[in-house]
Parts: sequence; C-alpha cells; structure tokens
Amino acid sequence: MNRDAPDMLDRPISTQDPSGGTGVTPYPQGVSGLERWFLATLLDGLGRPAIAVDLWNGETVAATSDPVARIRIRDRGALLKLVSNPDLEFGELYSSGRVDVDGDLVQMLEAAYRARSGAGRGNFKERLLARLHRPRRNTVAGSRENIHHHYDIGNAFYRLWLDRQMVYTCAYFPDRDVNLETAQTAKLDYICRKLRLKPGERVVEAGCGWGALALHMARHYGVTVQAFNVSREQLAYARERAEAEGLSDRVAFVERDYREIDGDFDAFVSVGMLEHVGVDHYGELGAVIDRCLKRDGRGLIHSIGRDQPGLMNPWIEKRIFPGARPPSLSEMMAIFEPWGLSVCDVENIRLHYAQTLRHWLARFETQVEKIAMMFDDFFVRMWRLYLAGSIAAFTTGELQLFQVVFSRSGSHEVPWTRAYLYTHNG
Amino acid sequence: MNRDAPDMLDRPISTQDPSGGTGVTPYPQGVSGLERWFLATLLDGLGRPAIAVDLWNGETVAATSDPVARIRIRDRGALLKLVSNPDLEFGELYSSGRVDVDGDLVQMLEAAYRARSGAGRGNFKERLLARLHRPRRNTVAGSRENIHHHYDIGNAFYRLWLDRQMVYTCAYFPDRDVNLETAQTAKLDYICRKLRLKPGERVVEAGCGWGALALHMARHYGVTVQAFNVSREQLAYARERAEAEGLSDRVAFVERDYREIDGDFDAFVSVGMLEHVGVDHYGELGAVIDRCLKRDGRGLIHSIGRDQPGLMNPWIEKRIFPGARPPSLSEMMAIFEPWGLSVCDVENIRLHYAQTLRHWLARFETQVEKIAMMFDDFFVRMWRLYLAGSIAAFTTGELQLFQVVFSRSGSHEVPWTRAYLYTHNG
Repeated sequence: MNRDAPDMLDRPISTQDPSGGTGVTPYPQGVSGLERWFLATLLDGLGRPAIAVDLWNGETVAATSDPVARIRIRDRGALLKLVSNPDLEFGELYSSGRVDVDGDLVQMLEAAYRARSGAGRGNFKERLLARLHRPRRNTVAGSRENIHHHYDIGNAFYRLWLDRQMVYTCAYFPDRDVNLETAQTAKLDYICRKLRLKPGERVVEAGCGWGALALHMARHYGVTVQAFNVSREQLAYARERAEAEGLSDRVAFVERDYREIDGDFDAFVSVGMLEHVGVDHYGELGAVIDRCLKRDGRGLIHSIGRDQPGLMNPWIEKRIFPGARPPSLSEMMAIFEPWGLSVCDVENIRLHYAQTLRHWLARFETQVEKIAMMFDDFFVRMWRLYLAGSIAAFTTGELQLFQVVFSRSGSHEVPWTRAYLYTHNG
Repeated sequence: MNRDAPDMLDRPISTQDPSGGTGVTPYPQGVSGLERWFLATLLDGLGRPAIAVDLWNGETVAATSDPVARIRIRDRGALLKLVSNPDLEFGELYSSGRVDVDGDLVQMLEAAYRARSGAGRGNFKERLLARLHRPRRNTVAGSRENIHHHYDIGNAFYRLWLDRQMVYTCAYFPDRDVNLETAQTAKLDYICRKLRLKPGERVVEAGCGWGALALHMARHYGVTVQAFNVSREQLAYARERAEAEGLSDRVAFVERDYREIDGDFDAFVSVGMLEHVGVDHYGELGAVIDRCLKRDGRGLIHSIGRDQPGLMNPWIEKRIFPGARPPSLSEMMAIFEPWGLSVCDVENIRLHYAQTLRHWLARFETQVEKIAMMFDDFFVRMWRLYLAGSIAAFTTGELQLFQVVFSRSGSHEVPWTRAYLYTHNG
C-alpha cells in the first residue's frame, strides 16, 4: 500500500463557486456537463491533487477544499487538449499561456506529483507503457541531434542563470545555505575525492558540459583529462577556458561520442550524461568503461534516476530533453554487472538537485526580460515550467540523483571507509 | 576484457618434478596419461591458478612456476572426484582429508578465485546455470529447515570463536587495526546511525541472530524492538540476555518468519538475513517492508552480495548454508523498486568482511581441539575451509557486502549529507 496521499483520497471531487457563493451550478454557462465530467475524471485519475481548476467562465472544479494553487484554463479547446493528454499538453498549454497558474508554480506541481504517487505510480499500465515507449533514439547520430537540441541553444542563455563555471548538473551543498557557486565547486571537489585522484593520473570524462569538472581535476588534482562531448557550443567554450587558464596541455576536449573513447585511464567519470544514453545503450557504455579502465581504476557516474523504471515526462522528452530517460538503479546495473565492475558506493542526493534548481529558477526569473528578447514568451514559460517541474520532481521523489562509485571487481583500490570524504580535505 | 590474471595466462601448463630433478616423466608410476590430461584440463578450466598439485605418487602438475601453495591429492579416487565436479568435491575431499593444502589455505583459495575470474567469470554458461539452478527452497517451512541446519548446531560452538556479543555478520572496522569486539560494536552503532533512530521509535528487525543489534538499539537509542528469527537456539540465548540486561520490556524476540511481520514501524532493519531469503522471495520481503514501514520510516538491509548474478559455491550451499544465494545489486532492487521504496545509500564494505573472517578463523584455530571434541575432524576441516574460503571470496571480489539504506519514495526524512556519520557520534 502506498501512503503518499493520506487524506486527499477521502475527499470527494466537488465543484465550488470561486466567488464564495454557495450555489453550485450543475451546467454553468459555456461549460458542458461532459466537459465537467472529463475534468473531474482527469482530476480523479491524477489522484485528486490539492489544486483548484478555474475555468474560462468563472466556474471552479477542485478535488480539495484547500488547494495549494489554482490552474486557470482559458478556453474550451485548452480543456479538451488537457483532458486528452495531460502529461504532454499541460506543458504545451502553459507555455502558450492558454493555461496559467495562480499561486506558487512549484507547489502546484508538487501537489500534482504527490497526488499521482498516491494514485498508484508504477501500476501495471504505466510500467507496460514504460516498456513499450521508446524515447528518441540515441544512436551516435541520434545522440548528436538530441544533445544539440538542448545544449546548443546558446552559451549566452545559460550564462544568464548558471553559476560562474557553467555547471549544469546537480550541485552538492555541504550546508544547505551555501550559495550556488560554492555548492558547484563543492560538487566538483566531492567527485574528485570520491575518485581519489592522484597527481599524474589519466582521467577520461564522458559528457563534459562546459568543461568545469575537467578543468577542476587538472588544476586541483594534477591529473590529465580527456573530456568527450558532442555539443559544439559547449566544447568551444570549454576550449577557450582551458586556453585562458593555461590548462590546454593537460585537458583535451574531444568532439566525439562516448562510444569512441579509447585508451587506458586511471579514472572514468561521467556527470549528467547517462540520462541521455538510453537504457538500451548501457551495455555499450559498460563496454567502453571495461575497455578503457585500468586494473586499479576507479569510476563515478552521476545521473538523474528513478525509484522504479519509468518514462521521462513526455512533455520534457519532447520539448526539453529529447531521448532522455533517467534509469532506476536496477536499470543502471546493466552498465556494471555484465562487465564485472563492482559498485562501491551509491549516494542519492535528490534534495540537492531540488536546491540547485531553486537557485537556477530564482536566477532565471531575474533575467526573464533578456531571455524573452533572446527567444520569446513561449520559451520563457516553457523553461520556467521545466525548472519548476524539476524542483517538484526532486522534492516529491519522482526523480532521484544517484552518484555511483565503482571499481573493477576485486580491486583493492577501494577506500577502507568513507570517513576520508568528510573528515579532511583532498 | 577482464584483466584479473594478467600473466598467468601466458604460461603453459607444465609438469614438474617436485624433487627438483630435471626429468619430466610422461607416464609416471600410478598416474595415467588420461588422469594427467584431466588434471591439466581442470587447471586450464580454472584459469591456471598459481597453485601446484602434488599427486600421490610424488608427481607435480602446475600451471605456474611459482605457486603460492600446493594442493596434495592423496589417491586416484580423489583426483577423479575433483576433476568431475571441482566446485563441490574440493570441499568434500578437503574435509575428509583426501585432499590437503600445503602452504597458506587462504592464499591458495585467493589464487583459485583470481584465476577463475580471469578465465571469464560470468560467461554465458555460468549465467545460464545461475538461472537454472535452484538452491534449496525458502518457503516458510524450507527456510526454517535451512536456518536450523546452520544456526542451531550449538551456541557453545559459536561462543568459542565469535565476539563476546555473538555477532555473526560482517563487522565495521573504523580503523583496520581495532579488535573484533570493537569492530562489532562499531558495526551495530553504524547501523543505528544510518537508520537515524530516535528515542521512543519502534523498530522491527528481520533475522536477529543472537540479538546483539536489537539489544544495542534498545539500550543506546531508546527504541523498542520486535526482533524476528526462526532459529530457536539463537532466540533462547537472545531472550536470556534481554532478561539479564533488563531489556525484556523493550525488546521482544519473536519466533516467526519475516513474512509474518506485522505492525507499524519507524525503522526496518535486517542484517545478514537476505542471503537466506532467496531471490524468488524478494517481492515478498518488499511487501512486508511496504506493509510495516511508516510514511517517514527508514530501512537498512545488510547482506552479502555479488558483482553480478551468480550461484553460491555449491559446496557451501550443500554443507554450510543450504538455500543461500547472495544477490547482485540488480537482483536486490526487486525488494525496493516494485514498492516505490527509495534507495538513499549503498555502501560496499567487502574488505571489512575479509577482516572479520580473519579474526574468526584465528579464534577458531585456537579452539580446534575443543571443536574436534564437540564434533569431529571432518567438521573442523569443513569449517576451516568455509572460513578461509570466505576470506578469499571477499578479498578477491567474488563476494561483496552491501549495506543499503532506504526510505519511502519522496520522504524528506533523509539526511542532507552523510557527513553526520563521520563527524560526530550518535
């Protein structure tokens, strides 16, 4: 029994007059009984979230008497689209402004996730869909296209709201209140320490973003790095930074797919790439690691994940991250188990991703005018929904953030305890 | 490519004259060419371990010029048995003395594990066998019988070589050199801290051994505990201890199967039971946890595991642990994923189990005369091989030790970081 939504389920769907009047109109002006039935059925199917829905004629439908936020549906067409495919269409309609949210967007999305989880997430139908649904393909060519879609929309845009080092993955907040710059640097360092990098070692990074980790490893741990990426804009930025910081001789940024990694390395690291690899390709990733990791090598994979196998939200997969699918741990093990790689340590820091995203959203909101000029209002609303929805997904446990440290099976190059990560630096 | 046995593979199987002479006798007295071919084929199939085999007639067969230890085969029948089914028969023949080991038993077994791992552990045939082979059944009745086989052979026996608190699971050595008593107490405490127990909470323990953890939790963390076990001898001991220590009102030792656990608990803990549950029953275990864990509850499962799905050594399964099978992490996830339980933390402390076993074996060896009187020489040799083989299995990575901390999906009762485990007490 899942107890995620303890008392919401006991309350009936009710229609309320938003003006505070007592009368409930069974067939109010402009809204047919069928439409109201559709909406009530939708809310029911969503687990009766603590959200009120205000329709274009002023009528309200709600599954709860104290909603945390209100969704405003501006026209009949929007209602019908929403009812037909809420997971996909809510994002589309919100982005275009035909659906809006009064109140806190994050709280509204959290209420939606919580209710759905109470309504039996991971039921048979959903799991079946998860097996049948194929996100966009992640062949070498497909991956390039998918990565281009998200990461090559302009470094100038990301510079507006990421930290100074342009780290676009979950930060690590040693204390909850440290700022984003500190938390991103702490994350880079935490990963280096989990990998126990030693001066002179050779590291390969699969999916290096704008290069912050590769440069951090070379500068602070004295290693040489080959950093792979298929995003041209990111690589151009990373190479420029390496040049400016005098690290070009120790960090090579390589425009190639992770499947083309070759050589012998003391450490393999990948932060925020696995989400784009696709479950079907985990065996290939494991083969790459097995091929390139020395006998006493260490590895770390940092990835968004899930508590059970399931799909990425289809709107996110369509608009934000084509081809993406965060794995459950059982799915992730397909990288390690066939190759005799040994999992040493798994840490789930999902609440740190919620915190990271709060920083990103707050910075984003201070820049919306510039962003609207760079793109348009649709883009601003789409991106706001993506960031707010991601906060909600991590706080409610819809998404996880796993850091997995591994070695080859039987390696003695594993730390005796984890205390060194917390009791001294380096 | 697995690189576990880098240069052994390059050396040919050779026959050597143990007297140091230069002549190799193709058909030495009493050993047929066929028998030598069998043995050479066996060593080949085992990955050419760094072990010499001395035969009853003085001839030696070895796959290496510098063996770490020598196996002595005392008669032709023993050779034939060994060749027919080495995984099962080595233990049988060693226990009866028809096969002996000159040199360090642990090093010999480590050489065997390492070579086999280089020979392609986890190949298709082995994985197929792992899927087809069914260890002894772990139904409620079957489990009772299997547990009785190992744990009810006499508290007096275990008292001879376990620590003072009779903790028969992997200890945790904050420093490698602390003694066994300290390391077992540290383990109990580490588990309590991972569970973040608070005074007044209710804990359920599945498989409580001689009761040390349950009593530790009640005494030092102020919780009440229901501790389940199907071993009568262990329960009798645990109840006596609870009584003597004035903890009977806070710890109930229950003679029931884990499938009969019922109630609402703040924490679920199971240390060293999962190995006996059987992969087919993980769904049932998950259902028990889901049924009994409160919304903000925490859980911890501590279990021997493997880097990839595979069988327990058949001799161990026959003689030592009927019905046992340590899971890989992907197999373990069948406990959590179907029930929306969220994995917070996985720690692999396999080297601590090797260290624990070294202490046990050393203590055991000081007591062999008493133990031979309690049982017989066969038992002493069998138990020695089990302990030594387990050391070798953990040092070589044939076995792992996983501590998995979990919560319900979306719980906020998860620690912000793991630093609290290492920077202060409690």
